[in-house]
Amino acid sequence: MSEHPLKHVLAPRSIAVVGASNNPQKTGYFYMEKLLQAGYKGQIYPVHPQQSEILGLPAYPNLAAVPGEVDLAYVVVPGEAVIQVMRDCIAKGSKAALVVSAGFSEVADEEGKRRARELQELLDAGRGTRVIGPNCMGLYNAALGLTFHDAPIKEGKIGVIAQSGSITVDIIKSGVYHNLGFSVGVSSGNEMDLNLCDYLEYFAADPATGIIAAYVEGIKEGQRFVRLAGEITPKKPIIIWKGGRTEAGARAASSHTGSLAGERRIYSAAFRQAGVVPATGLPELTAFLQAFSMLERPAGNGVCIVTGPGGPGVAISDACNEAGLSVPALSEATRQSLSRLLPSFAGTRNPIDITMASLADSTLLGQCAEIAAADPAVDAILAVVGPGEHEGLIEARGKIGKPLLAYDRSPAGLVEQNEMLEEAGVPVFNDVVYAARAIAALLGKVYL
Amino acid sequence: MSEHPLKHVLAPRSIAVVGASNNPQKTGYFYMEKLLQAGYKGQIYPVHPQQSEILGLPAYPNLAAVPGEVDLAYVVVPGEAVIQVMRDCIAKGSKAALVVSAGFSEVADEEGKRRARELQELLDAGRGTRVIGPNCMGLYNAALGLTFHDAPIKEGKIGVIAQSGSITVDIIKSGVYHNLGFSVGVSSGNEMDLNLCDYLEYFAADPATGIIAAYVEGIKEGQRFVRLAGEITPKKPIIIWKGGRTEAGARAASSHTGSLAGERRIYSAAFRQAGVVPATGLPELTAFLQAFSMLERPAGNGVCIVTGPGGPGVAISDACNEAGLSVPALSEATRQSLSRLLPSFAGTRNPIDITMASLADSTLLGQCAEIAAADPAVDAILAVVGPGEHEGLIEARGKIGKPLLAYDRSPAGLVEQNEMLEEAGVPVFNDVVYAARAIAALLGKVYL
Repeated sequence: MSEHPLKHVLAPRSIAVVGASNNPQKTGYFYMEKLLQAGYKGQIYPVHPQQSEILGLPAYPNLAAVPGEVDLAYVVVPGEAVIQVMRDCIAKGSKAALVVSAGFSEVADEEGKRRARELQELLDAGRGTRVIGPNCMGLYNAALGLTFHDAPIKEGKIGVIAQSGSITVDIIKSGVYHNLGFSVGVSSGNEMDLNLCDYLEYFAADPATGIIAAYVEGIKEGQRFVRLAGEITPKKPIIIWKGGRTEAGARAASSHTGSLAGERRIYSAAFRQAGVVPATGLPELTAFLQAFSMLERPAGNGVCIVTGPGGPGVAISDACNEAGLSVPALSEATRQSLSRLLPSFAGTRNPIDITMASLADSTLLGQCAEIAAADPAVDAILAVVGPGEHEGLIEARGKIGKPLLAYDRSPAGLVEQNEMLEEAGVPVFNDVVYAARAIAALLGKVYL
Repeated sequence: MSEHPLKHVLAPRSIAVVGASNNPQKTGYFYMEKLLQAGYKGQIYPVHPQQSEILGLPAYPNLAAVPGEVDLAYVVVPGEAVIQVMRDCIAKGSKAALVVSAGFSEVADEEGKRRARELQELLDAGRGTRVIGPNCMGLYNAALGLTFHDAPIKEGKIGVIAQSGSITVDIIKSGVYHNLGFSVGVSSGNEMDLNLCDYLEYFAADPATGIIAAYVEGIKEGQRFVRLAGEITPKKPIIIWKGGRTEAGARAASSHTGSLAGERRIYSAAFRQAGVVPATGLPELTAFLQAFSMLERPAGNGVCIVTGPGGPGVAISDACNEAGLSVPALSEATRQSLSRLLPSFAGTRNPIDITMASLADSTLLGQCAEIAAADPAVDAILAVVGPGEHEGLIEARGKIGKPLLAYDRSPAGLVEQNEMLEEAGVPVFNDVVYAARAIAALLGKVYL
């Protein structure tokens, strides 16, 4: 297989920081500091017209003076200087420029429009240097120790594309909080050159990426997107949080990344056709990533609820039904097995209501989950986990060949035991609405 | 004003624990221990047929032997003993019995039905002793230092009624986590005698209660409820989380508290008519309690979004629109004031996008919120708060006469600064969907 053309754009062996600075007040300082702190494994070339050293590294007056090849140039200069730096990138033969600078199509003034036009002309000339952005925030590649802002590095199989830099970071932070890992994360900004479709193509070919998450304000190449996503989703799930799906959101998107957010129903139809899973926002996107990363696809839509106290069982039943899932009655055989384990007044129909007996014996939850999993009507299990009940559930996880999800009702979160659960492959949710919708997402039953 | 007949039922001066025990394995021990630990300010009378002392307190062989008056009897005996204890309560002249014991109308067997019938006969005889439950968990009265399970004591103006004991506890825990306080919380169980309407009547008259929250599986007296709630909601908001609003939920409710959950559209119509605010679950109920406890009612539905990074501004715009709120353009005067404060490429239309400048100056968020609040198109302000930005926002809170809400995007939560914000009356949300719906709830624009 030949190398993908974006290989060294998204996995750069060297990064030149044009606009690097020793002044902690400058954005160029911030980017340099982050590359060093995170331990980026490639070459770093600070570029600055006067300084000969920046944060301890030799600096170069311009790109032409950089001794080695430059895979990626971070462009962290004022908007008016971007065009000249782009010309330098092309002359140097950089694979790409990541343009952090804003002030292009997202601003309505003449100056911004002119700049966008000039940049477009350079791109149209087709000299081979690609552009990430402009108006983007950075690139994340866990294997290379490359990150930006405060996105934590944790290697894994999720690839992220987001038109908002801070949302790229939010997605990675929320994922890592739930023990998920990431391959590459790209803040794609205004997408004047490289756009969602180019990144999707890369992720489709990238063996390190198994799940694709995106925050999208507008899609530039609609037909290409539908065709491409339709090819990818049978192999790798694509989850898209569509920003700007309402009138107010579309207006905000237009001044954020200059995107034409378009009509919701058009996106809805395109996503359905291509098998894309839509998410409403960060909590739901995170829930879906938890599910696709940790769980098997359920064989059907029957959920068994296992709970100590009774109230949450009713709430979860509602959430399941509202997400299009069923809460089927358990078989007589299952109910008899449960009865041997539980007090006489416990519920064994579904929800399985262990009652206060769960407080006295923290292993009951896992045991009930295991019994429930053997029932042919049950396709997934949602367990309400209280303090100390994680161990039994982790034990059950190893024996159950069906999706097992945990719901933590505590407001502060049972942090330590949740970490153990998620390390063992049991995703933890603190809102049953998202837990139920995550099961529906695995079944392809969530729509925009 | 004469004393409300439930006064000393819900604010008992004395509690007899029938079924108290020195054995830590027994439920009766658990209840005694909790009363002592929490520092209940009334008299505690343990009742046990043999023991003369329980957890250091003198115990009595039966209710008749208790020397003082018994306002409330906790009935923590096996189901088959409940009827005799109820007869004792009536003989003693207790104001009420709180029947923890399960095994009544929520179980389908003959024994349960017979017991429920016998209890009903005793109630019909009308000797004046009321019943909370059966199949309930306990009573909470912050001023009296009375609680159950692990509900934290914090005095405040929210009264809670929940058919699920664990949900009563969940509501109080989530509220206290957000600095909210509670007056009385009653786990109402099967509601064989005292039901939602009786408790609503009490809360309507109770000067300590300003907001009423309920988790309801079924409503016994529909017409009384609509009339009563309609009278209360103009003065005190009523927020109801309806459990069993789906087929699966209704089935679960029936085996949980024996409730007939009824059709969703009937509840929807009743809630609308009575001005009741419906909530979908614990996170949304908590969000609504935060809003009603801390915020003014907005004059209209125009929300101004203030954010450092741009992406969340788009997401919040979507959430606002989807909740029926608008994100109006700010006036020229407002935009000019903002421009004087912010970088040239910042967004001043709405959302106000401070850009990365927010990282350099943490006071900008509060300043922008203050400027926005002066705009006549703005009825509420939703601010995206990053680390360190709370101080400026707290300062702004004192000057803004419009609802100000904070959104914390961090997965673990900026716990300490969130506490400071909520102490200062700025509610913090970690999901913009619930934040937007909370504003809509204040406007009475949320429907089941």
